Amino acid sequence: MPLITFTTDFGTRDWFVAAMKGVIAGIAPDARVVDVTHEVAGQDILAGAFVLAQCFQNFPRGTIHVAIVDPGVGSPRRAIAVKTADYIFLSPDNGVLTLAVAAVSDRRPLEIRAIENERLFNRPVSRTVHGRDIFAPVAAHLAAGVEFEEVGPVIKSIAKLETAEPKVTKMGIEGRVMFVDRFGNLITNIEARHLEQLPAGEPKSFRIGRHVIRKFGRFYAEVPLGKAIALIGSSNRVELCVYLGSAQEKYGTRVGDKVLVT
Amino acid sequence: MPLITFTTDFGTRDWFVAAMKGVIAGIAPDARVVDVTHEVAGQDILAGAFVLAQCFQNFPRGTIHVAIVDPGVGSPRRAIAVKTADYIFLSPDNGVLTLAVAAVSDRRPLEIRAIENERLFNRPVSRTVHGRDIFAPVAAHLAAGVEFEEVGPVIKSIAKLETAEPKVTKMGIEGRVMFVDRFGNLITNIEARHLEQLPAGEPKSFRIGRHVIRKFGRFYAEVPLGKAIALIGSSNRVELCVYLGSAQEKYGTRVGDKVLVT
Amino acid sequence: MPLITFTTDFGTRDWFVAAMKGVIAGIAPDARVVDVTHEVAGQDILAGAFVLAQCFQNFPRGTIHVAIVDPGVGSPRRAIAVKTADYIFLSPDNGVLTLAVAAVSDRRPLEIRAIENERLFNRPVSRTVHGRDIFAPVAAHLAAGVEFEEVGPVIKSIAKLETAEPKVTKMGIEGRVMFVDRFGNLITNIEARHLEQLPAGEPKSFRIGRHVIRKFGRFYAEVPLGKAIALIGSSNRVELCVYLGSAQEKYGTRVGDKVLVT
Repeated sequence: MPLITFTTDFGTRDWFVAAMKGVIAGIAPDARVVDVTHEVAGQDILAGAFVLAQCFQNFPRGTIHVAIVDPGVGSPRRAIAVKTADYIFLSPDNGVLTLAVAAVSDRRPLEIRAIENERLFNRPVSRTVHGRDIFAPVAAHLAAGVEFEEVGPVIKSIAKLETAEPKVTKMGIEGRVMFVDRFGNLITNIEARHLEQLPAGEPKSFRIGRHVIRKFGRFYAEVPLGKAIALIGSSNRVELCVYLGSAQEKYGTRVGDKVLVT
Repeated sequence: MPLITFTTDFGTRDWFVAAMKGVIAGIAPDARVVDVTHEVAGQDILAGAFVLAQCFQNFPRGTIHVAIVDPGVGSPRRAIAVKTADYIFLSPDNGVLTLAVAAVSDRRPLEIRAIENERLFNRPVSRTVHGRDIFAPVAAHLAAGVEFEEVGPVIKSIAKLETAEPKVTKMGIEGRVMFVDRFGNLITNIEARHLEQLPAGEPKSFRIGRHVIRKFGRFYAEVPLGKAIALIGSSNRVELCVYLGSAQEKYGTRVGDKVLVT
Repeated sequence: MPLITFTTDFGTRDWFVAAMKGVIAGIAPDARVVDVTHEVAGQDILAGAFVLAQCFQNFPRGTIHVAIVDPGVGSPRRAIAVKTADYIFLSPDNGVLTLAVAAVSDRRPLEIRAIENERLFNRPVSRTVHGRDIFAPVAAHLAAGVEFEEVGPVIKSIAKLETAEPKVTKMGIEGRVMFVDRFGNLITNIEARHLEQLPAGEPKSFRIGRHVIRKFGRFYAEVPLGKAIALIGSSNRVELCVYLGSAQEKYGTRVGDKVLVT
């Protein structure tokens, strides 16, 4: 019986997540649910895409990943199901799968379907709660053995977020802050492989706004309390951090801000 | 092995929830626990009652629902167990079951018992942590097969919250805000069936404080970003919402505030 | 299949906890994970130690408790495994086990090992995410039946936090605030047994900063709304509370502040 994971912006204060778990327990009593997070901030599709992409590959083969960050719920956009070599993903067709799919799509063609088979839904389907009425029951039916083909017809493509690649020039690398974690660490779109293209080998400085970080290290505790350090984090990307403090607060950074590596 | 759900105001920062889960694992190793929420705000019994009522029917038959929002813990009020056709509820006798019981009580008489059988408790029973010492072990014993009759003697009635019904007049419907969800949507006590009693058929306007919402639609995204809309939400009640914003912040609303539909 | 519990400061907003659960599901599919908390405040090792100590004994024998509050992650400190009569604990060697180990160490000698067996790790091991790459997979392997001896070599001692005992004098008892729970209750290091040493028998007053609480009772609801009371809480320690309010806010208290009982 496969795992089902949830990545949503539903929060844990209200009843939305519990309703999904109740529906799943009724359809697939042995299925196990793991909450990736329900705290994707402010209906931010990119943040949801990022969080999912950071951990989906830690789950065993066959896991069904459900990602619902959906400012447009109820409006006419599709619900989609994507099958990769190892996983099934369910989500609204709004780009929230962009980063996860990019991480696996070099392996083999994806099988993409629109979720349209109403026999798999929780009836009647509400206009605002597709998590409970569409995504949860479809995930549960798949976990219980329903064939992937039954969710609906094949479609050709899915919505994608524009996610800028960093620019690598003679001057250095110009990237952006992609995500701010709860410790206030600034996670960029600059990956370890980009740093290898720097002419000098090791990076010398990291500019964020008017500030420059000159320490490139391996772990937070290499600098004194409150001091900044750049490092390759668990996401395999450049992260700008303040030891026992918040780089976000120190620099007043927002997602999308430029980071210049020289 | 049935499910056990928890609806509490214990939060997830401290150890109270873990202690309950540890106790359950010791008594009923195969029982599965689903957190409805531990974030009921500020020991607000009505909010707990509302959250539970919104989702308990999504769980399969046999589920044991534990609801603990208990400002009076340790004072002399009973712990109760209520058996309905499909579920068992455990809670302090303070009205937190009011809305859930109202949703099922038309079907058949409830069986209500005081939880008094100390052989089912975690001993010694502390004076402040009845979740760990009474509700969790009793839920676990019931999940493990103890008969409902064993929890304690039959009692005749349970405490109920006063929950005002909306007033339907020639002028329109006067209701109240019952719950504010984490997106700041204002959920009222006006149900879809009340709107059908409006002379004009469709509602024309929704007054909240000094503000009037004239859009009655089907989903958030029907209005531009930051604009207000009234709709029938997943709770089957009128909700006042701001698309990608917070109606609570926009209108400065509190639970109990009047909503006038004309 | 034993339970695995987590006590961390990782939060539930990002992907760190999900990554650990994914790794565990891959190694020990039947293992069950219980979150004690992921909200240990601000990388506060003492707070993590306190939360774990309050609930670990509620779990059944054989449970594997993982505690990760680790401001020094990546720096050269060991990861340790401690086996007691009933449990296994995994943590960085920074004192986070101090209070739990103190609660069981009178029973029999502990078996302490350094976690060094890289065959049990998630490879490659990142420099910043030992939860995912070391603690989670080692816990899962132990849950799946790997012998405790295989985690690494025996070591003689573990790091301990200094946790001041209260001073009992003729004047009374001088203790400190150890933990503030989410309701703002102030939990002290003064245990029920310390109060028995007071010459007068029952305590007369509790001084915190410039304030004095004269009510010593059994449960919150003994005092009017907003009034303060001292009681022996579920932790078996003196707690200073405000009924339906926050003692922390009322008194402006911080962890470490003195409490004088006379």
